[in-house]
Amino acid sequence: MLSPSSYKVLEGRFARLTVLRDAAAVLQWDMATMMPEGGSEARGEQLATLKVMSHEILTDPALADDLGRAESETGLDAWQQANLREMRRAWLHAASVPGDLVEALSKAVSRCEVQWRRARAENDFAGLRPALEEVLNLVRQQATIKAERLGLSIYDALLDEYEPGLRTPAIDRIFDDYAAFLPGFLKKVVERQAKNPPLAPLTGPFPAADQHKLALRLMTALGFDFDHGRLDTSHHPFCGGVPDDVRITTRWNESDVTQGMMGVVHETGHALYERGLPRRGHYQPVGQARGMAIHESQSLLVEMQVCRSPEFIRFLAPLLGETFGASPAWEGEDLTRRLSRVKPGLIRVDADEVTYPAHVILRYRLERALIGGSLVLSDLPGAWNDGMRSLLGIVPPDDSDGCLQDIHWPGGAWGYFPCYTLGAMMAAQLYAAAARAIPDLPKLIERGDFAPLFAWLRRHVHEKGSALSAEQIIAEATGRPLDPEIFKNHLARRYLGEVLAA
Amino acid sequence: MLSPSSYKVLEGRFARLTVLRDAAAVLQWDMATMMPEGGSEARGEQLATLKVMSHEILTDPALADDLGRAESETGLDAWQQANLREMRRAWLHAASVPGDLVEALSKAVSRCEVQWRRARAENDFAGLRPALEEVLNLVRQQATIKAERLGLSIYDALLDEYEPGLRTPAIDRIFDDYAAFLPGFLKKVVERQAKNPPLAPLTGPFPAADQHKLALRLMTALGFDFDHGRLDTSHHPFCGGVPDDVRITTRWNESDVTQGMMGVVHETGHALYERGLPRRGHYQPVGQARGMAIHESQSLLVEMQVCRSPEFIRFLAPLLGETFGASPAWEGEDLTRRLSRVKPGLIRVDADEVTYPAHVILRYRLERALIGGSLVLSDLPGAWNDGMRSLLGIVPPDDSDGCLQDIHWPGGAWGYFPCYTLGAMMAAQLYAAAARAIPDLPKLIERGDFAPLFAWLRRHVHEKGSALSAEQIIAEATGRPLDPEIFKNHLARRYLGEVLAA
Repeated sequence: MLSPSSYKVLEGRFARLTVLRDAAAVLQWDMATMMPEGGSEARGEQLATLKVMSHEILTDPALADDLGRAESETGLDAWQQANLREMRRAWLHAASVPGDLVEALSKAVSRCEVQWRRARAENDFAGLRPALEEVLNLVRQQATIKAERLGLSIYDALLDEYEPGLRTPAIDRIFDDYAAFLPGFLKKVVERQAKNPPLAPLTGPFPAADQHKLALRLMTALGFDFDHGRLDTSHHPFCGGVPDDVRITTRWNESDVTQGMMGVVHETGHALYERGLPRRGHYQPVGQARGMAIHESQSLLVEMQVCRSPEFIRFLAPLLGETFGASPAWEGEDLTRRLSRVKPGLIRVDADEVTYPAHVILRYRLERALIGGSLVLSDLPGAWNDGMRSLLGIVPPDDSDGCLQDIHWPGGAWGYFPCYTLGAMMAAQLYAAAARAIPDLPKLIERGDFAPLFAWLRRHVHEKGSALSAEQIIAEATGRPLDPEIFKNHLARRYLGEVLAA
Repeated sequence: MLSPSSYKVLEGRFARLTVLRDAAAVLQWDMATMMPEGGSEARGEQLATLKVMSHEILTDPALADDLGRAESETGLDAWQQANLREMRRAWLHAASVPGDLVEALSKAVSRCEVQWRRARAENDFAGLRPALEEVLNLVRQQATIKAERLGLSIYDALLDEYEPGLRTPAIDRIFDDYAAFLPGFLKKVVERQAKNPPLAPLTGPFPAADQHKLALRLMTALGFDFDHGRLDTSHHPFCGGVPDDVRITTRWNESDVTQGMMGVVHETGHALYERGLPRRGHYQPVGQARGMAIHESQSLLVEMQVCRSPEFIRFLAPLLGETFGASPAWEGEDLTRRLSRVKPGLIRVDADEVTYPAHVILRYRLERALIGGSLVLSDLPGAWNDGMRSLLGIVPPDDSDGCLQDIHWPGGAWGYFPCYTLGAMMAAQLYAAAARAIPDLPKLIERGDFAPLFAWLRRHVHEKGSALSAEQIIAEATGRPLDPEIFKNHLARRYLGEVLAA
């Protein structure tokens, strides 16, 4: 069958867009890992130009014409139809917002991020407020325009950017349920863990070079292909690069070997997802990572479901011994207990998997209220502290460890936070389904044989690319829609040793 | 004065072109230093797309219209006029050749480079010939079209790409003179050096990490700013990146510390030129490096004029002792003699500064004959060997060490070779002028104080960007046109300890 012409033309346009995005991804990786500070201005020009040129390609009126024509073409197969739908989606998000508004937000974000770094260091929320107000107003304007074009509520239009199809009613249901579940559950876990003997001290220092070597062994065991990727260090760990050349980073703490290691396996989960995306659609929207919730499900599946499990720790402990010498910290249940400690804390990025959702729920509720106008920025610190008290029973001593801790809001990433916790829940559900499908999965993991697990994930998640929504991926892979009970069951099993009533 | 509008529009177009070229430069650096092999296909797509998009910008008919209008605008200052002239030049080279010919050559080069790697390893010139014939034919076609547009001979049109303004008659005069000078001079140098006592052996191994540390010290002393650049390793040393973030590379030979070190100071010369380009024209053609002969003059000035001089070696020897321990190889005249050994050899990249021009003259004569059609490819190996015999008195045992040794011809870089030797001559002339202008320059160098020399080079060479031709830069900086007698005088002084009659 000959491919219809407007569709073919669109494939060419989107291939170019993807290649420009790939080039920018490598430049961003370099900026975080290799670039000397004096290169930042020139790099800024390069990234801005690639962004502007991509925006020009996407908002070219000829592209909109091609979309219209291609949508009335017959003979497209299901994959091509999905690709066309993703093209339309990308176009809607890009072309619905006027260029001057895009530029105004981009500049406001640059200003606000600089302000935020200072404000966080100086605990100066009042000083940040004007710049943050500007970002919030511009984000709201953009979302209002998109909401109308997409037929969504304003906040749902924001969510849709990060995980297409994600909607407020579903999140409310899941988050309200978790917020109700958490206090009682948390109390039991904390009481139970308080009865444990103290942990053996970590017998560091753990030289960064040795941690690096161990990380390479773990990555190789998990299936990371070093002919198609690298591990480097950066201030904030991330997964970047392109599917055929995935660049992950971490940072090493020489007095606690577990931090860098867990960072590495988390990013390895992201990397394996990128590597597993369908080759067929490599340079097309349909072949790209679905959304941030699915992406996070793949990193959390590796970190939380696999690498903090007792079976993985039985695989890991001898490697730690080989690398750093014998230590009571690698013996018996010690390491398992270390990697599953639960303690309410002020900082999201340091939170365990039980309390992490509370941090997300707080941000979700606050950003919805701020976008909707029922909360004003001057009341944010108070609302933050009230939320922390009610969700986790603790209150930050200052805004630096409170509402100033994350870059997301100054950076314009409103509507992103829910992806973290939905990803954690998807990870639990996918892992449970994989464990049903793969005989003896815990034993395989204990032996360091991860191939069957990742083969299952590739087939059921990675290779779907963006052909399905996140909801569809989960439903098809696990036989049911996202079900937060499975996550809660995972927590009950891991932290209380019990199975909740279904 | 308000800037005229068509000129301003052109500035915007060329700024975008420069930024795309900068992005490609970083991606190329990464490809040579960091990229895992499996990333090459994706990287190829990125570089090809940036190239195609740049070509589209440059050959957009609207740009040609702007050029025509801007050239009749009044009120442009000299700098802007020079910029406009360089824009026209870039346009002529890009837009005069049809897109399908550009693409055909690009593909032929890719094929031929692969063939060349195999052919060189297997000493199989006959096997390479068809692919090389294809490249030669396409290069000749391109040059023929450009020659007509530029009003130049075919070979001059090729030269003009690498060093604008470079023409055959001037090169002939210089190269014929050197070819006549060389045999007698070389004989005297070889006889003189034969009387020296043998060199003390190098007391290696010299660990790469220590060589790296020493290289950083030398680069810092020479004025390399690590806030705006890096040193890494790659298979072939090069200078890449962008003016505000210059990335140089080298490779280390653990049994001979001088190789990597001389590579580093050579690339540092290139890097300091890039860093010294005028900020004002950063993203405009007029602010960019002039051509390859001038570029090579800056690397060779540092490597040959400065860093192989007895005064530099007096600065260097104690650093070698500190880094690698005491050795007779760092004492007395030993290192100076080691760094100025002259010996006719088969391989261009290993040649000393006396015999290097012979390698270049040979290639220049052969490529002109091949482009002009007076030599056919099947006769190249024989012509090569005849040329080596007549210029250096040696004959390669096989084509791998003969006409197959360089990537330039398979890579489509015809007309490039003369830049190496013209650069060496420019370096000698610039250094002589700097030494006249800066009191006690040798003493400053011996003390490791290179600031006055580089300040002079910045003012007289770097900051000119492309506002002047290479010829003008040399004439204005040194008070006379390029004069090969100065280079010969430098050689006579260094290798025979005598001053030739002017």
